[in-house]
Amino acid sequence: MTILQELEKRVKLQFQKLHQLLKDDRAKQFRKNFLDMHFYEQGQFFLTMNASQRKQFYQIMNPDEVGDMFDTLRDDQLDISQLLSEMDLKYASEMLSDMYDDNAADLLEHLDKVEVDRYLTVMAREDANQLRGLLHYDTETAGGLMTTDYVVMQQDVTVQETLKALRKFARTTETIYYIYVIDVNNDLVGVLSLRDLFVHSDKTLLSSIMTHNVISVYVDDEQEEVAQFFRDYEFTSLPVVDHANQLVGVVTVDDAIEVMDNEAQDDYSKLAGVDVDEDDNSPIKSATSRLPWLITLLFLGMITATLISHFETLLSKASILAVFISLITGTAGNAGTQSLAVAVRKLSVENNKGRHITKLLLKELVTGLFIGLATGVTITIVVGIWKHNFVLGFVIGLAMMVAITVANFAGSLIPMLMSKIGFDPAVASGPFISTLSDLTSVLIYFNIASLFMKFFVGM
Amino acid sequence: MTILQELEKRVKLQFQKLHQLLKDDRAKQFRKNFLDMHFYEQGQFFLTMNASQRKQFYQIMNPDEVGDMFDTLRDDQLDISQLLSEMDLKYASEMLSDMYDDNAADLLEHLDKVEVDRYLTVMAREDANQLRGLLHYDTETAGGLMTTDYVVMQQDVTVQETLKALRKFARTTETIYYIYVIDVNNDLVGVLSLRDLFVHSDKTLLSSIMTHNVISVYVDDEQEEVAQFFRDYEFTSLPVVDHANQLVGVVTVDDAIEVMDNEAQDDYSKLAGVDVDEDDNSPIKSATSRLPWLITLLFLGMITATLISHFETLLSKASILAVFISLITGTAGNAGTQSLAVAVRKLSVENNKGRHITKLLLKELVTGLFIGLATGVTITIVVGIWKHNFVLGFVIGLAMMVAITVANFAGSLIPMLMSKIGFDPAVASGPFISTLSDLTSVLIYFNIASLFMKFFVGM
Repeated sequence: MTILQELEKRVKLQFQKLHQLLKDDRAKQFRKNFLDMHFYEQGQFFLTMNASQRKQFYQIMNPDEVGDMFDTLRDDQLDISQLLSEMDLKYASEMLSDMYDDNAADLLEHLDKVEVDRYLTVMAREDANQLRGLLHYDTETAGGLMTTDYVVMQQDVTVQETLKALRKFARTTETIYYIYVIDVNNDLVGVLSLRDLFVHSDKTLLSSIMTHNVISVYVDDEQEEVAQFFRDYEFTSLPVVDHANQLVGVVTVDDAIEVMDNEAQDDYSKLAGVDVDEDDNSPIKSATSRLPWLITLLFLGMITATLISHFETLLSKASILAVFISLITGTAGNAGTQSLAVAVRKLSVENNKGRHITKLLLKELVTGLFIGLATGVTITIVVGIWKHNFVLGFVIGLAMMVAITVANFAGSLIPMLMSKIGFDPAVASGPFISTLSDLTSVLIYFNIASLFMKFFVGM
Repeated sequence: MTILQELEKRVKLQFQKLHQLLKDDRAKQFRKNFLDMHFYEQGQFFLTMNASQRKQFYQIMNPDEVGDMFDTLRDDQLDISQLLSEMDLKYASEMLSDMYDDNAADLLEHLDKVEVDRYLTVMAREDANQLRGLLHYDTETAGGLMTTDYVVMQQDVTVQETLKALRKFARTTETIYYIYVIDVNNDLVGVLSLRDLFVHSDKTLLSSIMTHNVISVYVDDEQEEVAQFFRDYEFTSLPVVDHANQLVGVVTVDDAIEVMDNEAQDDYSKLAGVDVDEDDNSPIKSATSRLPWLITLLFLGMITATLISHFETLLSKASILAVFISLITGTAGNAGTQSLAVAVRKLSVENNKGRHITKLLLKELVTGLFIGLATGVTITIVVGIWKHNFVLGFVIGLAMMVAITVANFAGSLIPMLMSKIGFDPAVASGPFISTLSDLTSVLIYFNIASLFMKFFVGM
């Protein structure tokens, strides 16, 4: 058994026990067992409860405890509006105030304005204003990720004073391991870690030990770029400034990990033309979510069929041509899918929209030619020997070479164009490129075959 | 300009300046500018130097400084053996000792035993032993990720004593933000964060404030599972124990992020049947790395061609059948790719090899039937109207329905089987499933067409 399976088993047993305690109404024991679990496990348990169990749960636990647990839940898994409405209004507001403000704001994003106001008006004014501030930012930007709970000090304080302040901050602040330093104009001028405080003597001024060259992101920077900083610089938190260089928040590494994870899943889903995190249980829902894309491509495929239809006379004279349709379209589609994935990855890593595009496309054209040549020669020989007809072999080989070169090039060109006009390049999926390359491949194949027909038919 | 582009521009200017300083032999100014950059940027600059510049560089910087920079370099980007051999033996050993031990071990993994010994014998015995210990572990396990630099305390010490100890640890230890607590038998019995220390009074004993329910991983657990813990529990470090529950190391979040990033890329690459991080510049190299997979699939495609070849008599009588080959194989391939991606994702998230497999497969079978039915009916109507032949439409529709159901099922079945027999389910790529489904689709199509031929030919 792997460690995850072991843990899963232990947690499952614990969950059963908790459900039993709830059923037996043993509130005190339930509290104890529940609080003994990690926040993440608490959250996972919460997801197993039904509405009436949740009602019981809110009576046992206080808002602060429920808030700690809610901090670990991903807002896209929940029906927030429903959950909050099940709580007493005051209870819900208290819970929201007790959560980390970035997570509370993420929950509130899912409610309409009237609902949000209902909760905020019951809150302490300071908490409400903080949340209102965060709700202004686009969820997919640094502003949407950041917390406004962080440690900020003036540059002329000492290590000792800072350590003392940290002991106060520690109770409520999401991250105390980086200290951001501002000057009298509130400009962000430095950063240092708690570790830096520890290795310097008590009387040292922050200004003399801080890093002056602070890496920060703008409040409206896209979350992918923010995540990129965490990956490259190995930060555990990153300051967010407005365009006047005033510190407005801090993004923590757990949020960056969530972004990376979502982005990776998103790219994976798009490559396959399907939402891989679709609903688990209902085949009807799965089918409904996959069909629009499939039906669209079906109609693109109909164009290909229409094209082939124009060559029916050729086909009736040389039915052997039909034998190789799927071989040529299939291989070209595979090559196109490969070059698509490489292009999408390049675009996401390099962030240089436009700069090297021509170079990349040229490179992919040459790569496609090499691949086309290699597969074309292989298939010429194989078909030549198989059908004792090297002219036919040559026709198939040439068609395959051209079809592959075109599909390979299209696999790069299309995501590059998408990125150029401001779309996410990853929306060009593998199935789309395959279906499109079916069309070009068929066109290439039958035109080449028509051209050479007199040489191989009847041989 | 995005923040990343701005930064890139600034860094590029800085790099030009550094190269100029190196050329002008202005060592002192070079040192200053170089050390002003972040470690990550230092590493990126290092990658721009050639061998003779590196020689000059080692004379300007000391091993400790070069070690800090090396800590940020990904070992798969470097020719480690070459780089170390360019340094003086003593310099290289000192640099390796000064690096975080997990990163130093990652570098040494790339050398042969004799080379490793050459560097280790010059080192202080303690450092050498630490590295030797780490080199024992498989690189893809928790042991291969962990550092042995961490903070460990006995449970009967006070907060004050711990804080004092941390000030000593802070200079050299990779992570001081979690304190691991052991009992007299060296068993891992608790964990607490630096934050916990800050909110409790000086005289408090660690045993009374630590979390007893410590989540840890085994030294031989796979790195994907380790990364999963970081994602779920939002840890910034995670203790590693041997099977006797003795603490042997700590994995930090930066290493977990690298694993997640690599895994995501790997899955993406496999889905497309290509290494998306292939060499940038050489089309020949790209083509060579993509060809083996394409040629293999080409031969699988040849089987499909052979099958079609058996139906040439049918095709010569009803050349209309050729018109719909690519439509049927294409659509079935697309459906297969979708179900493949969903299955691979499910397997990677759920870690429950074997448990729900039958349920998932059954669900996918029903989903496939729905999708097949919807596309089959659509295409029956379209073809019926287009060709004024509803019998032909029905044949195409029925073939498509069966072909899709089969491809969709195969897209789930194959990764599940792979996982069951201990392979990475992600090696079943989209191109593989498409090519395989070409085969089954053609078989289904022509058999159905043969069955109904007398009803639609000549109508």
